[in-house]
Amino acid sequence: MKQINFDHLAASQILPEAKEAMLPFLSEDIGNPLSKHSFGNKPRKALEESRAYLAGLINASLPEEIIFTSCGSESNNLALKGIAQAYAKKGKHIIASPIEHPSVSHPLKSLEKQGYKISWLKADGKGNVDPQEVSSLIGEDAILITVTSASNEIGTLEPIKEIGKIAREKGVIFHTDSIACAGQVPLDAKELNVDLLSMAGNVFYGPLGTGALYVRKGVRIIPLIEGGIQERGLRAGTHNLAGIIGMGIAAKIAQEKLSERREYLLNLREKLIAGTLEKIPDCFLTGEKTNRLPGHASFCIKYIEGESILLHLNMLGIAATSGSTCSSEALKVSSVLEAIGVDPIWAQGSTVFSLGIDNTSEQVELFLRELSGVVEKLRMMSPLSAADIEQFRTMKHHHEHE
Amino acid sequence: MKQINFDHLAASQILPEAKEAMLPFLSEDIGNPLSKHSFGNKPRKALEESRAYLAGLINASLPEEIIFTSCGSESNNLALKGIAQAYAKKGKHIIASPIEHPSVSHPLKSLEKQGYKISWLKADGKGNVDPQEVSSLIGEDAILITVTSASNEIGTLEPIKEIGKIAREKGVIFHTDSIACAGQVPLDAKELNVDLLSMAGNVFYGPLGTGALYVRKGVRIIPLIEGGIQERGLRAGTHNLAGIIGMGIAAKIAQEKLSERREYLLNLREKLIAGTLEKIPDCFLTGEKTNRLPGHASFCIKYIEGESILLHLNMLGIAATSGSTCSSEALKVSSVLEAIGVDPIWAQGSTVFSLGIDNTSEQVELFLRELSGVVEKLRMMSPLSAADIEQFRTMKHHHEHE
Repeated sequence: MKQINFDHLAASQILPEAKEAMLPFLSEDIGNPLSKHSFGNKPRKALEESRAYLAGLINASLPEEIIFTSCGSESNNLALKGIAQAYAKKGKHIIASPIEHPSVSHPLKSLEKQGYKISWLKADGKGNVDPQEVSSLIGEDAILITVTSASNEIGTLEPIKEIGKIAREKGVIFHTDSIACAGQVPLDAKELNVDLLSMAGNVFYGPLGTGALYVRKGVRIIPLIEGGIQERGLRAGTHNLAGIIGMGIAAKIAQEKLSERREYLLNLREKLIAGTLEKIPDCFLTGEKTNRLPGHASFCIKYIEGESILLHLNMLGIAATSGSTCSSEALKVSSVLEAIGVDPIWAQGSTVFSLGIDNTSEQVELFLRELSGVVEKLRMMSPLSAADIEQFRTMKHHHEHE
Repeated sequence: MKQINFDHLAASQILPEAKEAMLPFLSEDIGNPLSKHSFGNKPRKALEESRAYLAGLINASLPEEIIFTSCGSESNNLALKGIAQAYAKKGKHIIASPIEHPSVSHPLKSLEKQGYKISWLKADGKGNVDPQEVSSLIGEDAILITVTSASNEIGTLEPIKEIGKIAREKGVIFHTDSIACAGQVPLDAKELNVDLLSMAGNVFYGPLGTGALYVRKGVRIIPLIEGGIQERGLRAGTHNLAGIIGMGIAAKIAQEKLSERREYLLNLREKLIAGTLEKIPDCFLTGEKTNRLPGHASFCIKYIEGESILLHLNMLGIAATSGSTCSSEALKVSSVLEAIGVDPIWAQGSTVFSLGIDNTSEQVELFLRELSGVVEKLRMMSPLSAADIEQFRTMKHHHEHE
């Protein structure tokens, strides 16, 4: 049985062109980009080409504004801790969205313990943060604003441009986690007025475990990994050369094919969303209906645990997730769904589908057929009915008011 | 012209077996080891196999004691900052060797700025630190000892076992940077009584930009990269899956072939050292003569700049370095050579050769022929003669006493 990948944010196939470009660096072209002897020449040239491709993907002014990291999570950690440490003398106030990935929210919580003040923004029911709230929270001691470009759990595209404008006007550094966005939607670092932007190569069909951080010229960060002079001294350590080369080629192709891919994914997504909402009763979409990641669809399917749906879909050859892959082993209710006000009872039925360019219309149709069956079967087995839930609520309500 | 790599510590060819094992993870076997659906199965199995191979290479008690990182530098940073933060309440005193790689010495200097006290050990003229000095420096507030297993600049094998014994007796955590050692010399984490041990895959013919940190069970570290639940929560971020698989296979083979490779490299090294000292007048070996890394030879060649020698060797197709690749762009006198008391005038003539299993006896012979020519030529061109240097010293001496 050919497995269907509807969990592209966890892992996507590598583009053949990216793989092809990597192969020489896994055999004959041994060399370290930092070496001054001949072995360093080809690696150095390829490394700098990759840097230029990444810069191109987000329209950075200079290739040097791209810092290679080992993954999106490192990019986020480097951005947040790097800025916090570099600007600690200016202030210790950070403004953050409540729908961040754990690789943003966890470092922020650590910074909080170290004496930084984190102002968590509100998000509306569709996951939008309000640029005006950002503006109103900026005081003298604000050093950083961090808002994801789109949460991988709910897909809503955040008002980055508006926040960027405010941040620039008020002179506060602005970081956005664009890991789920980069290569999927047009991103222009200059136009968006962002100072730092995190990316991961695997999201745009580069190799797993590659990443980059855009750091606008003039913005200081303190490195997480210190030592050698790699990456302008901002990220020491021997380069994952093959991985970086693969990510570079993937970035180049992502830039070239952005509209085409986006169009393709939008169509699949619309079909998946419309079909699901039509076929599955007591099910709602999380995040914005249209202003969301092109290949992203997320639902809460009432009266069933998301994990059970995923397990059954998996047995039928369809892969999806219930939230962030990075945290999905912990069976807690998603803090992102909590932040957008989803009732914890329904949040248990969370399912997230992230489509990719290898998915087809037929796969979506197959999925829709299977999903109905799975949901029906599980609801039959489920001890919870609408009436049960109502009763539970009423009891809970009574208890709370006793 | 076939280039000769005498700079294996900067980069080595990847073993064909390692490359072969990586390929499926660069194409069909897409999947994230953390995914609960089928796509995660094969990656997860392969990831854990790699972990077991790394554990085997250093005889760790448990595979879970291996944390995958993106490179040796990250391993060092994670070990030092992770321990410093985790045990700050116990004390802030760290004991360190003076011949550490920048990925150890720079983090230590940062910790110093944050209020930690670093006691720098002495090293003798051959680069040995004294376990008794370590012992004498341990007080109530000592939380960490960090001594490299062997410096990549001078190759001397340090008395890790003796230091480990002292550290364990006195209850102080012991980290060793084994990046230049792991896969090259036998290492037994249990027998050595180390608590943390840094490794890099490329040193034992795995892919560039892969690393691991051994963290003995029971030792706490605070993660550098926070977010997901990868690596027991000690190192968040999507895995560089292909790289880790390649490093794993390379570790397995390194363990199997350790003695054979070591023997082979020892012979080449002895030939290179004896030949160089015989053919090049006014040249001395740095580090220990025999108690050193099997494929490592390092010299100071008087009256010439190391950089010029390397440049000329490179034109003849032979790659070598003047010290740590990570810092070799900065034309400063090596702090390692300074620590072992090499006169700064001679330290300028530093050259480091790290041999690998692809090197041959013929290559060493070719090198020895070429080196004589290069040195002779450069000395002819050089404005400095022995008499000049003596005069310079005498003048300096006079000035200092005026």
